[in-house]
Amino acid sequence: MRYEIRLSGMGGQGLVLAGIIVAEAAMAQGKNVVQTASYGPESRGGASRSEVIVSDKEIDYPAVIEADYLFAMTQEASDKFIPEVKSGGMALLDSTWVKEIQKGGASSVFHHPLTETAIEKFQKAIFANIIGLGIMCKSSGIVDPAFLEGALLDRVPKRFKDANKAAFEFGMELFESSKLAAV
Amino acid sequence: MRYEIRLSGMGGQGLVLAGIIVAEAAMAQGKNVVQTASYGPESRGGASRSEVIVSDKEIDYPAVIEADYLFAMTQEASDKFIPEVKSGGMALLDSTWVKEIQKGGASSVFHHPLTETAIEKFQKAIFANIIGLGIMCKSSGIVDPAFLEGALLDRVPKRFKDANKAAFEFGMELFESSKLAAV
Repeated sequence: MRYEIRLSGMGGQGLVLAGIIVAEAAMAQGKNVVQTASYGPESRGGASRSEVIVSDKEIDYPAVIEADYLFAMTQEASDKFIPEVKSGGMALLDSTWVKEIQKGGASSVFHHPLTETAIEKFQKAIFANIIGLGIMCKSSGIVDPAFLEGALLDRVPKRFKDANKAAFEFGMELFESSKLAAV
Repeated sequence: MRYEIRLSGMGGQGLVLAGIIVAEAAMAQGKNVVQTASYGPESRGGASRSEVIVSDKEIDYPAVIEADYLFAMTQEASDKFIPEVKSGGMALLDSTWVKEIQKGGASSVFHHPLTETAIEKFQKAIFANIIGLGIMCKSSGIVDPAFLEGALLDRVPKRFKDANKAAFEFGMELFESSKLAAV
């Protein structure tokens, strides 16, 4: 089993942190994990890219070949990486930013205005990534929710723990209550 | 120019965070950067490994081939990775944990009891990585100190900013005052 996750958007959306949290949760579950963040000069306020490879075996090649799961938070990231989703893979798109929803080879594409919802429910755009983590957790099944929540709470400052927990659980509920748009 | 940094020690020593800080500083300076953290099942309290590749050009291969700089905080990490330091490269070893100092192909090996110093000067072992960042910054020259300090202060909780700044500056002074042991 090798499972490849790609998270891509703008600097400041917290997708590098989201990747680290997934990596630490999978590691705590006893998996082999490689977490990667790539930054180019264009990424000052521009593109940010984070990858997590989870495997039961040793990981030879430390980069995504074809993503099993794409979490994209800009139109640019969606346009660029949807074609690289594995046939039968999944994608989660923040429709606050991704206006043109494409499917590529993905079997399921979920879209929800994560950033708008984060502002509305949690008064801060920065929780959009955490709502997304909740959706990704439930839709992918790649990490146990309790481990992911544990890794999240280990990583965030004390005074934001409650809000992060609420945002994560809100994301899981969004998926479970089928309130997500899907193509 | 491609410069490869490897940081390795135990989980909890903050070497993944140190790698992220170096990566963000180099990115802010306009470099291409790939930052990687690898975790195996053995890493629950065991081995932690973090890599940063800095380049003026696009980075094709996202992993260390031969390290230009090794920062090792356990005997195991030092034993394992000193042989993979590039001929002419550098190493920084935390001699609180690395008792048997080896040189491998490195042109310079600095060693200092970082963890003991962190406890003595800053009352917390967790600042050892940040003192190390100060030493690495000055000895490698790979990132500008102002950018590295900026990236550090962006990443740490507000109430620890002053202590982190002091630990980073203390590390730079350790190198500049030639108070480091070198082989």
